Amino acid sequence: MTEQKDKKQVYKPKAISGFPEWLPEYRAIEQQWMDHLRKVFESYGYCSIETPAVEELEVLQAKGEVDKEIYVLNRVHADPNEKGDARLALHFDQTVPLARYVAQHFGNLAFPFKRYQMQKVWRGERPQLGRLREFYQCDIDVIAVDQLPLAFDAEMPAVMYEAMTGLGIGRAQIRISNRKILLGLVEALGISDSVSVTRTVDKLEKIGEDAVADLLKKEAGLGADSINKILQLVKLKGDARVLENIHAENEQMAEGIKELTFVMNALSHLPQGAAIADLSIVRGLDYYTGTVYETVLLDIPQFTSSVCSGGRYDDLAGSYINRHLPGVGISIGFTRLFDVLSHYGHIKPGPKSPTQVLVVLPSEDRRVEASSTASTLRKRGFNVELYHAPQNVKKQMEYANKKGIPFVWFPPFEDGKNHEVKDMASGSQTMADPMTWTI
Amino acid sequence: MTEQKDKKQVYKPKAISGFPEWLPEYRAIEQQWMDHLRKVFESYGYCSIETPAVEELEVLQAKGEVDKEIYVLNRVHADPNEKGDARLALHFDQTVPLARYVAQHFGNLAFPFKRYQMQKVWRGERPQLGRLREFYQCDIDVIAVDQLPLAFDAEMPAVMYEAMTGLGIGRAQIRISNRKILLGLVEALGISDSVSVTRTVDKLEKIGEDAVADLLKKEAGLGADSINKILQLVKLKGDARVLENIHAENEQMAEGIKELTFVMNALSHLPQGAAIADLSIVRGLDYYTGTVYETVLLDIPQFTSSVCSGGRYDDLAGSYINRHLPGVGISIGFTRLFDVLSHYGHIKPGPKSPTQVLVVLPSEDRRVEASSTASTLRKRGFNVELYHAPQNVKKQMEYANKKGIPFVWFPPFEDGKNHEVKDMASGSQTMADPMTWTI
Repeated sequence: MTEQKDKKQVYKPKAISGFPEWLPEYRAIEQQWMDHLRKVFESYGYCSIETPAVEELEVLQAKGEVDKEIYVLNRVHADPNEKGDARLALHFDQTVPLARYVAQHFGNLAFPFKRYQMQKVWRGERPQLGRLREFYQCDIDVIAVDQLPLAFDAEMPAVMYEAMTGLGIGRAQIRISNRKILLGLVEALGISDSVSVTRTVDKLEKIGEDAVADLLKKEAGLGADSINKILQLVKLKGDARVLENIHAENEQMAEGIKELTFVMNALSHLPQGAAIADLSIVRGLDYYTGTVYETVLLDIPQFTSSVCSGGRYDDLAGSYINRHLPGVGISIGFTRLFDVLSHYGHIKPGPKSPTQVLVVLPSEDRRVEASSTASTLRKRGFNVELYHAPQNVKKQMEYANKKGIPFVWFPPFEDGKNHEVKDMASGSQTMADPMTWTI
Repeated sequence: MTEQKDKKQVYKPKAISGFPEWLPEYRAIEQQWMDHLRKVFESYGYCSIETPAVEELEVLQAKGEVDKEIYVLNRVHADPNEKGDARLALHFDQTVPLARYVAQHFGNLAFPFKRYQMQKVWRGERPQLGRLREFYQCDIDVIAVDQLPLAFDAEMPAVMYEAMTGLGIGRAQIRISNRKILLGLVEALGISDSVSVTRTVDKLEKIGEDAVADLLKKEAGLGADSINKILQLVKLKGDARVLENIHAENEQMAEGIKELTFVMNALSHLPQGAAIADLSIVRGLDYYTGTVYETVLLDIPQFTSSVCSGGRYDDLAGSYINRHLPGVGISIGFTRLFDVLSHYGHIKPGPKSPTQVLVVLPSEDRRVEASSTASTLRKRGFNVELYHAPQNVKKQMEYANKKGIPFVWFPPFEDGKNHEVKDMASGSQTMADPMTWTI
């Protein structure tokens, strides 16, 4: 039966490091996850947008050279004498594309603009587990004109908590702070180099309190009193009540405390521990001006970094449009999460096929009955395959087994009655009517 | 209230030619279309796969230099002394990636392998309406080991007819032929240059019978008798009965006629004219070895090319694996279709927001009731926004209007009763209970 070709030279393909792809049974779960996220995002009124995979290099670098490893495109057959188009590069996140999109379509969007975006992004980094060159990000952002109500800062964690817990990977904890609090304290202490303070505090969870104190002394040149005050602040962690104990040294601190208190109070309907105030959260990017978020998975110790992060920024698209557009957003590093979780066996693969019912084709002369049975079931919403050739029934059952198809249907004999269906899990076979049968 | 920034230099972004993006109200329709296609594909048992956006250039060119304009990637900061990774390039279709995927994961797939794939592909072509540099393709293919039953050749048009007609863009007609018939005739006539014949016949609909006869004479050097026999054949068009009149000159022709007859008979359940035999269909690519498909939209005269094409190929992955893997597939040029249809106004935009209900926030001290109302409705499956600030009700209604939100909900007063909901289309306002209300 089998026709074997002459052995010949083939180019044996291998996986490209950093560019993951999944077998169908894992792709099915990836789709389930994405469907779930989309459903949650839409249930809070976020609309979908998609931007091209590329931006002009000049757009990506409008705020200056970026240190992400950007992939630029060249056509393989490009005519060297051809007048150059703008140089195109693959986007490395969805925030720059969002800024460009909002600036470009400003007059056609309704504000506050609430959008979600679930696309692949590319970074030419050295790949390792959880650090990929191509990965999905799932972002929500709200962009307003001139003023953005604080209610949106509180909406982000509410949406993401629902999004994360629906994935069936245990408890998520969203840790929230407001950069104005720490930056206000830094200002009150007369420290000019705020960046080195925030960068050091950002390491607290990783390197511990003593190492942070040491760095603040050696690298930022702070005195013992300043270090003590900073550490006292950033060690605060808990529900809204921990904020009551912070003494506001200046207006900026007071504003930060007020904003964070509002956000925490608005999240009081979430289960205990779902969202906590954590003053050590500062985020690396200077970009953020107020509320900031990180998220840990309490039941997945192998996933050590933040799975879902973001914050408020004052001026989204200032490089592209002369309008003041504040925003707040949060982003799931989707593929990074999926990659690490599947690596550690935390993802149970789905079925190899979406087919729910395999209709047996007993012989060529009963194709009409079999085909019409398949069609009836399909119209009723089931995913149905008609077996592709009139082979013996054992072979057809094997196919169902191999693909994990849960039901095998035996179409009627000439009398048009007596359908039977076999439940492959239990092995039981019963009479059934394709017009009324349910799983 | 508004804070106007100092005028400063901005980089005003513009659309990149050939890289389409849509406003939210069109993106909503694009999503609807893709959801529909996915549902149809899965209902016939096709599983989803996704491959990375890139392949190794060597994989893309394993069958020799390809004439598509390929985009290759370079890292913007690449160290010139760094040992080169393999050169990566964006895929220009989904067939080469499928071949590579099947070869690479051969041992982990269940055959016949039925997969759909809906991803963006990139081609560095000169853009024009309907010819883009970045576009979605939506493909289904079945790959078997050694032998592929003809039933799958008949399944392709059945699936795609359902897929296309569900888009609400009028009647689709799938035109089917089998290359063995024309190639058999060419062989019987002793013509050695079959490629120039198929390439000429491919132009029949565009340039007409006389021009084709002329080209066959001048370019392929055929005599009057051969030209006449070829034209007689390729003018045949209609249901399975037209095939009865073809005289098989050799075994290859006979096999082609038999196969096409099987396919047409298996499609007899489709509405009249949905699938026709059309012997002028040959497809440009030599790649195809049997059944071939093209699809025209009968009610969209502006869309002149085939919207959905494909066919059977003998050996999918011969460049990558020493196994004989025949396949059959068909592909929708999704974004090309969407682009042309929206250009000609054939696509009615959807809502600017997925929100179905806007819950009014009457004042800050009624946030708890309003928030809990929104939450109740959301849990019941509705897409719900709680208005973001306690502004006056007129302003909140304006927001609903601007975003096309169909219902505005007034939460209860202190007594917890007396919810009211306003239907924005009719203007009628009625009492409603968030636990039982339906649209």
